[in-house]
Amino acid sequence: MRQQKPIRSDMGWTTVDRIGVRGLDLVNQIIGKVPLGDMAWLEINGVLPTPQQSVLFNALMVTLTEHGMTPIAIAARMTYLGAPEAMNGAVAAGLLGMGSVFVGTVEGSARIMQQALKGADKPDLKQIASAIVADFATRKTAIPGIGHSTHKPIDPRTPRLFQLAKENGYYGNYCELIQLIAAEAERVLGKALPVNATGAIGAIASELGFDWRICRGIAIMGRAVGLVGHIAEEIRNPIAREISKRIEEETSAHLHQK
Amino acid sequence: MRQQKPIRSDMGWTTVDRIGVRGLDLVNQIIGKVPLGDMAWLEINGVLPTPQQSVLFNALMVTLTEHGMTPIAIAARMTYLGAPEAMNGAVAAGLLGMGSVFVGTVEGSARIMQQALKGADKPDLKQIASAIVADFATRKTAIPGIGHSTHKPIDPRTPRLFQLAKENGYYGNYCELIQLIAAEAERVLGKALPVNATGAIGAIASELGFDWRICRGIAIMGRAVGLVGHIAEEIRNPIAREISKRIEEETSAHLHQK
Amino acid sequence: MRQQKPIRSDMGWTTVDRIGVRGLDLVNQIIGKVPLGDMAWLEINGVLPTPQQSVLFNALMVTLTEHGMTPIAIAARMTYLGAPEAMNGAVAAGLLGMGSVFVGTVEGSARIMQQALKGADKPDLKQIASAIVADFATRKTAIPGIGHSTHKPIDPRTPRLFQLAKENGYYGNYCELIQLIAAEAERVLGKALPVNATGAIGAIASELGFDWRICRGIAIMGRAVGLVGHIAEEIRNPIAREISKRIEEETSAHLHQK
Amino acid sequence: MRQQKPIRSDMGWTTVDRIGVRGLDLVNQIIGKVPLGDMAWLEINGVLPTPQQSVLFNALMVTLTEHGMTPIAIAARMTYLGAPEAMNGAVAAGLLGMGSVFVGTVEGSARIMQQALKGADKPDLKQIASAIVADFATRKTAIPGIGHSTHKPIDPRTPRLFQLAKENGYYGNYCELIQLIAAEAERVLGKALPVNATGAIGAIASELGFDWRICRGIAIMGRAVGLVGHIAEEIRNPIAREISKRIEEETSAHLHQK
Repeated sequence: MRQQKPIRSDMGWTTVDRIGVRGLDLVNQIIGKVPLGDMAWLEINGVLPTPQQSVLFNALMVTLTEHGMTPIAIAARMTYLGAPEAMNGAVAAGLLGMGSVFVGTVEGSARIMQQALKGADKPDLKQIASAIVADFATRKTAIPGIGHSTHKPIDPRTPRLFQLAKENGYYGNYCELIQLIAAEAERVLGKALPVNATGAIGAIASELGFDWRICRGIAIMGRAVGLVGHIAEEIRNPIAREISKRIEEETSAHLHQK
Repeated sequence: MRQQKPIRSDMGWTTVDRIGVRGLDLVNQIIGKVPLGDMAWLEINGVLPTPQQSVLFNALMVTLTEHGMTPIAIAARMTYLGAPEAMNGAVAAGLLGMGSVFVGTVEGSARIMQQALKGADKPDLKQIASAIVADFATRKTAIPGIGHSTHKPIDPRTPRLFQLAKENGYYGNYCELIQLIAAEAERVLGKALPVNATGAIGAIASELGFDWRICRGIAIMGRAVGLVGHIAEEIRNPIAREISKRIEEETSAHLHQK
Repeated sequence: MRQQKPIRSDMGWTTVDRIGVRGLDLVNQIIGKVPLGDMAWLEINGVLPTPQQSVLFNALMVTLTEHGMTPIAIAARMTYLGAPEAMNGAVAAGLLGMGSVFVGTVEGSARIMQQALKGADKPDLKQIASAIVADFATRKTAIPGIGHSTHKPIDPRTPRLFQLAKENGYYGNYCELIQLIAAEAERVLGKALPVNATGAIGAIASELGFDWRICRGIAIMGRAVGLVGHIAEEIRNPIAREISKRIEEETSAHLHQK
Repeated sequence: MRQQKPIRSDMGWTTVDRIGVRGLDLVNQIIGKVPLGDMAWLEINGVLPTPQQSVLFNALMVTLTEHGMTPIAIAARMTYLGAPEAMNGAVAAGLLGMGSVFVGTVEGSARIMQQALKGADKPDLKQIASAIVADFATRKTAIPGIGHSTHKPIDPRTPRLFQLAKENGYYGNYCELIQLIAAEAERVLGKALPVNATGAIGAIASELGFDWRICRGIAIMGRAVGLVGHIAEEIRNPIAREISKRIEEETSAHLHQK
């Protein structure tokens, strides 16, 4: 017989007349007092954020909330078209596209930096940046967090995010490192590779103490909000059916001609 | 040849150096200025909330963010166990359980009330409540937004939410109606059927002007935050594997005995 | 302390050198002997199908496998575009659109018929059909399983499916009833409302003894296969990026003009 | 103005009275003639399988259909508990756990072998196996497709699958290579690392000509069937609520004691 291990969670608990969330009383200490963005910090960290942490963390989340009619938004609207009775399914479908190509790079950029700086006392950031770029160049793989197909030579979100990091006391080695990585990559590869929004978010989340494995969650929480926004617009002004009809017609036109 | 219809969206747009979101400039007007909860209001309504709307709307969202180790949280953790490289999938799996049984009732309660009060000038709320209860009693269907398996005779979140609605100027016919429905249902069915949190949220969201079809989204945005919190705990203190092993062992024990 | 209830499952079990599935030995009795369609029957019913059941059940599943570039297929491809490392997420995104509007009607048609014929010894099918149509007409709701935007006055899949039901000994009251419902609905509503493929599948699945609550599963298993097919084509000939670019450009063009 | 690229798909098309799927007529050439497993081959490859391909391909899909009460099955059941009106969501939730830890290794094993053998005329399989093991050992990463926590020293599915590959004329370099990789890994790492089912499937799928990027799809189609089976059992014998209650009670017990 296998020896069972204990299982426990500190997230929340419920009795007949009380609900506890992360050590606080939901009714008396959270509802009406803690806004959604600070709630996110509480959920992850177990304590409420300082005002500085709150400003910065909310900034990270809203940066990735909305980017127009992306593949993610299209997937959500297509799903809503077929299943309007389950809008949670539409939001879920949208979230499923947050992978390696688009926003998943928040996680990747935080990962390479946290692994590189782990345990380092006075790290030589320039050397670390060179090593990272060389490693990716050898494997012919894109470095997460730098480069953007539209926003070049600068991603306009990045300087704003670093400015906020400075103003709120969280501009440190990670913010420096991602910029050194971008500069070195531009030098080695000979093209514009600015720190993009996901790179800046990965760096600042690392400054705020977030484990790289949870950093994609910052993007997920923000984008869940954006996807609900898209469904709300789809309800007001439905376009999913017209979109799907056009695609169906054009992609199958050659089959009908036979 | 089918005549194509125009397709347009006002959610956002992008140029080389600017990103627009709902009529605002992302970099200069949103990042660092608009927190996540207000961003959610902007996404849905196209304008920023007043301070009163912000307090109330954030209250609605955080109410449903965390409820401990629910089926939703378990589904997310089981998914993360198999695919830790795609935490968006784990959050999506959790969202998929937000259906008719648990939080989907936000949508149902808003629906029946908005349909009942639509176009009514001076509605007789008591009569409307009686009609709704009678209709559900005939169809032997549970009325969404009232009753709770644990929180009885009172759901502690409900009076707090109504208090906030009053304080912020959004306590009106919907808040009255859901309470009249609960009282009438208790009378007719002879058991405790308090307005639960989803009923209070459905009522207040209706006061705030939300279409019933988007009301589940309030719960979805809140719970997406809570699910990221659960994944963060699962990373710190993994329990999903032990849980799944126990269930596997117990449910298949009789098969091994053969 | 709550009294725990027993939990057990008969689906499968594993030892060091054996795997049991629904009472059979996976290695010696299933692999290489039971094809996927019969496996689906075994999973649901606990026994292998007869040859007649196999032909008919496979026919139901393949009918809904592929329907070209539907919203479901578009959602899957958009998701794959963002997360090619997790094609299970792309298939999942596609499945999420199988709701009330399209294939979910398999479940609805099976439901109304199973509920109407439950316990009936010698049912008056014509009267039952009239009652069902009258009920839906009163509630101004579409009857699941009849009518089609493209395939009219006849859905070509329906006569073929009923022919197979007859050939294999499963043409009975449900097959009759759905056709009577369609005829009565056409009479009452004065327009072409043929039994569509989901109605025929709902009827035949009922003849085969499937609970209406699992009937959507027949469509799900079929469509999961179709969605993998779409991803395979997307790998060979990628079109998702071009589709998303076009939609982005056209839907946001008015915002750029400002 | 961006130059648009053409978009086309050969999956299917529809007219008023006909439906075409992969070049065949759905009604006359598929329904009642092509079972689900062969339909999967048709969807991916555009032609029907030979009898040998059919036996082998169906064997691959049914191997991973059912494995008892796995995390994937638990996630699906938890989701169904909250949203029984949308069983497609429950199946989707289950699929989302098919990541790097469990069945996603089908893709990984096919990938490393296809990349290693690409363009090789008379490959030295032993040397290639050594190079692969050395590469993974250096990166301290598990080799996909070998090793199993339960099935050791042999995964019983593997010899059966290779036997079928031989009987049907598809036992070649990939089947040899995965076994050489396992043998070399056992030698280097000094522990039992048998070719597991996902490794055998990855090898045989490669023999059958499947691109490694679609190989996870073989597992997905099989498991979608298995997940519908689990929902069917959950409908007959509901256990999800008891499971979730137990987990909730035990994980939060320490919070109540405060």
